[in-house]
Amino acid sequence: MSGASEGPFAKLPEPPYYAVIFTSLRTEREGVEYGRVADALVELARDQPGFLGVESVRDGERVGITVSYWRDEASIAAWKRLAVHLGAQRAGRERWYEHYELRVARVERAYSSVTSPRAGLE
Amino acid sequence: MSGASEGPFAKLPEPPYYAVIFTSLRTEREGVEYGRVADALVELARDQPGFLGVESVRDGERVGITVSYWRDEASIAAWKRLAVHLGAQRAGRERWYEHYELRVARVERAYSSVTSPRAGLE
Repeated sequence: MSGASEGPFAKLPEPPYYAVIFTSLRTEREGVEYGRVADALVELARDQPGFLGVESVRDGERVGITVSYWRDEASIAAWKRLAVHLGAQRAGRERWYEHYELRVARVERAYSSVTSPRAGLE
Repeated sequence: MSGASEGPFAKLPEPPYYAVIFTSLRTEREGVEYGRVADALVELARDQPGFLGVESVRDGERVGITVSYWRDEASIAAWKRLAVHLGAQRAGRERWYEHYELRVARVERAYSSVTSPRAGLE
């Protein structure tokens, strides 16, 4: 998933911008409904002002990391209000996740293997 | 993987701290060696001053997100110097990754489903 059609990579502007890092362990009882709602939420996020992109990976053992990128804190706050309004937060917390950790961070520097010869493991 | 033995979740102090978000697409030719070196690097990172923890997920299609957490920018810079010295950066860039994006971010807020009733989708 990504903001543009870049395979697994979000195509982002130059920093600074914000990242919401969401690491989760899903419950065992999630099924088709989870995937449907998660996809719908991502599509909805894409339409929000300030949404820049998303990168998401899930392994075969119910663990996932999703990082969504936003222009500023106001964009994140507006998205959070919308998610609360839709009840998605409560549903996710109660039914889909056994445990999650969520961190809001300000991206200060970015390196790409495509556009820069630097880094690799910083 | 994690800093302590917390399953997939890093056990972290209160913000602020730093996150290195590494999203990658591996080459098709990686094999046993990649896993061995990657594991060795994580073990080495754990011993570095300022290392706080790591969360990492890989799917079945060569895409991964690894987020390592550090006390401050100086810790990240020292780790980067060590990785360069070991040649791990060049090896990774040339042999293991078809494409990667790396972002350095300052974590400003954190929520947990375990310790806090807040959030879920921020």
